[in-house]
Amino acid sequence: MRVSLKDVAEKAGVSIKTVSNVVNNYPHVTPAMRARVQQAIDELGYRPNLTARHLRKGRTGIIALAVPELGNPYFAELAGAVIDAAAEHDFTVLLDHTRGRREQEVLVSQGFRARVIDGLILSPLELEAEDLQGRPDDVPLVLLGEREYDAPHDHIAIDNVAAARAAVRHLLSRGRTRIAYLGARTDSANRPAHLRLVGWREELKTAGVPAPDELVVPVDGWDRDDGARAMARLLDAGVRPDAVFAFNDLIAIGAMRVLHERGLRVPWDIAVAGFDDIAESRFGAVSLTTVAPDKQAIARMAVASLLRSLSGRSEPGGRELIAEFRLVERESTLGRR
Amino acid sequence: MRVSLKDVAEKAGVSIKTVSNVVNNYPHVTPAMRARVQQAIDELGYRPNLTARHLRKGRTGIIALAVPELGNPYFAELAGAVIDAAAEHDFTVLLDHTRGRREQEVLVSQGFRARVIDGLILSPLELEAEDLQGRPDDVPLVLLGEREYDAPHDHIAIDNVAAARAAVRHLLSRGRTRIAYLGARTDSANRPAHLRLVGWREELKTAGVPAPDELVVPVDGWDRDDGARAMARLLDAGVRPDAVFAFNDLIAIGAMRVLHERGLRVPWDIAVAGFDDIAESRFGAVSLTTVAPDKQAIARMAVASLLRSLSGRSEPGGRELIAEFRLVERESTLGRR
Repeated sequence: MRVSLKDVAEKAGVSIKTVSNVVNNYPHVTPAMRARVQQAIDELGYRPNLTARHLRKGRTGIIALAVPELGNPYFAELAGAVIDAAAEHDFTVLLDHTRGRREQEVLVSQGFRARVIDGLILSPLELEAEDLQGRPDDVPLVLLGEREYDAPHDHIAIDNVAAARAAVRHLLSRGRTRIAYLGARTDSANRPAHLRLVGWREELKTAGVPAPDELVVPVDGWDRDDGARAMARLLDAGVRPDAVFAFNDLIAIGAMRVLHERGLRVPWDIAVAGFDDIAESRFGAVSLTTVAPDKQAIARMAVASLLRSLSGRSEPGGRELIAEFRLVERESTLGRR
Repeated sequence: MRVSLKDVAEKAGVSIKTVSNVVNNYPHVTPAMRARVQQAIDELGYRPNLTARHLRKGRTGIIALAVPELGNPYFAELAGAVIDAAAEHDFTVLLDHTRGRREQEVLVSQGFRARVIDGLILSPLELEAEDLQGRPDDVPLVLLGEREYDAPHDHIAIDNVAAARAAVRHLLSRGRTRIAYLGARTDSANRPAHLRLVGWREELKTAGVPAPDELVVPVDGWDRDDGARAMARLLDAGVRPDAVFAFNDLIAIGAMRVLHERGLRVPWDIAVAGFDDIAESRFGAVSLTTVAPDKQAIARMAVASLLRSLSGRSEPGGRELIAEFRLVERESTLGRR
């Protein structure tokens, strides 16, 4: 006969709740208690079945998280945070990457895995509002990230305009007046500018500092190589900023590599600020000043939003949920202390 | 009535196979063909159901991948490769991280999600061979990584000893004779040494170069911070190597940061080589020489191994499958060219 949680609890002489805490690897269990429960588990040969509870509710216990690119540390770190946040509610995470392609994002958002997931967290890049029409409403959807949609789904983001302004304000406070924005879209003809570009422009305007077009630098993508190529193009065109604000840390890191190769010193010749606070930004010869979104909060809010929908408590219109950010000042703007 | 693949094919005037290729986002479909099929999909409101095929075979179409830490770019990059390899066979990937904790690895390997997955790819850190006994054999398991188990499961790895020897041989060829190994386990009392440490020792012995214990440096973990702390401890103890071979790139990157802070020049004062070839290693002020395992091959082999088991073609004993590696020589050993 199958060994139950109750059998383990009786054998160990503890409550079922305690066994559950150990099995689910929750904190707040003392090592001694953990060892005692583990011994009972080992002796009885208990195999936990985390899905049973979900199955009783007609759920699979799986939520999907779709991000553009797992190779981008921001999304990998965010995925880790979502996995942890989901585990606290006994949910596991089906992870997918869309390569930021609209057709993949449409597939994911239209629920091509609807039979196996209870909910979806999607961080879109190319998805359009119309793509969200007509999707099945039995799989709740939460949207993450900079893009805003007029759609009846919760959307979780930081205040990207305010965050970009904070970074630019910091560069201005370091005496910089020719601050390039590295990371404009090359195909931005018929879509709104990135909120981070909006923030760059607004802050410069407020400070009465010119924001010429030559300082708005397009990129082909969001990776280190794209930042390196964009920086090289800018310098080759004879444009010489005294600071760079990059759309994300990867672009900033690529740009810094090119500055180093050209013998330009960061921050003395050109200061650099990024966005995301990926772990890598604390290392390298020059650590990177960056905007740090609260990834743990974003993950917790996303999972909580799905749980709210699953229990029928979501509001019909969708909510705009704002997570915190902070500016982390490091050597790429302050120099070596 | 539900729109089928056949309806789309008729509307677009193409074969069902072509529609399937578009829906599954396979390459080798021309943009024109893709647009034509997409138009039919849009007009008919077709929603692909990738799981139906699996369900007919009694499968869920989901395989799980459990790695120690998604925040480690090696595992994030590997996960991306596994997701892509799985997608080629219409499988999606349930991703989990174990934090490298034995109890989590046991939970995962014992199939606590057996009802929702068809197979499991596990990259263990702390799992012991005994933990694999008595696991249900209806969910095939493939093991990845450096650790070797006497267990009836396919195991996919590179030749870690040969790879470490190649890195050390390269450092020797650069005239280095005091090569530290950064990344020994602190709790290695009752377990075999890492194969990479074995390779370090063997190559030095072959070259007739001393391998004193003071050059074997333990780490608390596998992240950049751990590498930085270990390097600082070594230098503070007055030990001065002329090269460092690190267990992985993250440790090497942490070590290089400390060398930079102390005014030691890489590679002139101390050369550094890592392991993993994460994207980050190509950037920074000094790009990193490193061993590059063929991650795409590892991912493809892991998925192929699971498919083999699922179709009942696996051999009972488990196979040892070896992927290729290459040494990528960069500035941390060659200097700036």
